[in-house]
Amino acid sequence: MRQRNKPWAKDKLAEYPQYVISEPEKYKGKWKEAFDKDQPLHIEIGTGKGRFITGMAKANPETNYIGIELADSVIVTALDRIIEDELPNVKLLNVNANDLRDYFEKGEVNRVYLNFSDPWPKKRHAKRRLTYRSFLEIYENILGDKGEIHFKTDNQGLFESSLMSFSEYGMLLTFVSLDLHNSDYEGNIMTEYEEKFSSRGSRIFRCEVQYR
Amino acid sequence: MRQRNKPWAKDKLAEYPQYVISEPEKYKGKWKEAFDKDQPLHIEIGTGKGRFITGMAKANPETNYIGIELADSVIVTALDRIIEDELPNVKLLNVNANDLRDYFEKGEVNRVYLNFSDPWPKKRHAKRRLTYRSFLEIYENILGDKGEIHFKTDNQGLFESSLMSFSEYGMLLTFVSLDLHNSDYEGNIMTEYEEKFSSRGSRIFRCEVQYR
Ligand SMILES: C[S@@+](CC[C@H](N)C(=O)[O-])C[C@H]1O[C@@H](n2cnc3c(N)ncnc32)[C@H](O)[C@@H]1O
Ligand SMILES: C[S@@+](CC[C@H](N)C(=O)[O-])C[C@H]1O[C@@H](n2cnc3c(N)ncnc32)[C@H](O)[C@@H]1O
Repeated sequence: MRQRNKPWAKDKLAEYPQYVISEPEKYKGKWKEAFDKDQPLHIEIGTGKGRFITGMAKANPETNYIGIELADSVIVTALDRIIEDELPNVKLLNVNANDLRDYFEKGEVNRVYLNFSDPWPKKRHAKRRLTYRSFLEIYENILGDKGEIHFKTDNQGLFESSLMSFSEYGMLLTFVSLDLHNSDYEGNIMTEYEEKFSSRGSRIFRCEVQYR
Repeated sequence: MRQRNKPWAKDKLAEYPQYVISEPEKYKGKWKEAFDKDQPLHIEIGTGKGRFITGMAKANPETNYIGIELADSVIVTALDRIIEDELPNVKLLNVNANDLRDYFEKGEVNRVYLNFSDPWPKKRHAKRRLTYRSFLEIYENILGDKGEIHFKTDNQGLFESSLMSFSEYGMLLTFVSLDLHNSDYEGNIMTEYEEKFSSRGSRIFRCEVQYR
């Protein structure tokens, strides 16, 4: 995600504690208290400017969402969207996905979304991919039984290596589309990257996998 | 595979018992006796006109190959190629893949190739796909420990459903390319269908999976 220098971003995030949770470790084991309704919790890792997570929250009021994003300069845009629509079922965490186990108890999350994650194409950077086995371990530790990862990307190399990583980890592939925008998959909500790359003609790959 | 009516095909196959094994059940458990050399055995299911299997046999003299093809009208062309090159390490079986367990003992085969298998796109025909779980069970019963399936196709729907079928069966995905001809995969040997579809611009999908 293009990161412009926004020195005011941190301050703005702090102004909306009802949307941006500043000490998420305090909610560990009791995220239902952070939301109006006690309902399933889906998180997105690398939320960027929040087009996807806010679109999902609007389309699915019966689900709670948390967007997790490292870069304050992009997550502020996600915040703007939430403010504008006064969405009660989305929160944001300006934290690193590495630390998810500090914020969620095992079983507290029902689904993880990974959208257009940084591809890290070089082999020596494979460990940084959000579908690398060390991350699958982290997600497993916050997801419940048969917890799901829903993943989409335009990056063929990342998709290929992720399919192998999921398989090696013993996960079950329950859905795969090798050309999402020309498939009969319904209800797709586009991310910023998806909008940009698909409008340039890129093919979008998508899959769902489940721990077993 | 386009099947022209060739009433003489059966007779021609019978004329070359050194290449076309007419009673394969007799070799069950002793296929090494059918070949000059005792070396790993790889089989291809749905060999068609044999471009792939004869190409592989030439490129890999240290492997024995068996091409399995139901239609006598196309397998005769595979026979012509073997006769022409006097290949010692390829045999042909004009039989149905359903019956493989009658012809091979568990562990006798080291690898199964599936190339451009009939896609059977309709859901109600899913069981006919050569990557359906009942076929994976058949292959498991003739392959050894960590036996492999190498699969390629231009058919996106078949590739998608096959990835899910392999996963559901608990197989390990050890290689995947979602655009074989634009990848750095080396030593690819094209099949007739691959030649035809890729020259028309179709993307070729390929994967390797392993029983575990
Ligand atoms: C390529 S962008 C995609 C953004 C958005 N998902 C989309 O599809 O438009 C990847 C995002 O992931 C974020 N990110 C990368 N690693 C992260 C981590 N370990 N924890 C949280 N966010 C991360 C980056 O800051 C960046 O905004
Ligand atoms: C689409 S063609 C592909 C031929 C070749 N592999 C290629 O790539 O050019 C599929 C072939 O599989 C054969 N086939 C289909 N089902 C089979 C079965 N159960 N046993 C043996 N051969 C089969 C068909 O007769 C046909 O020749």
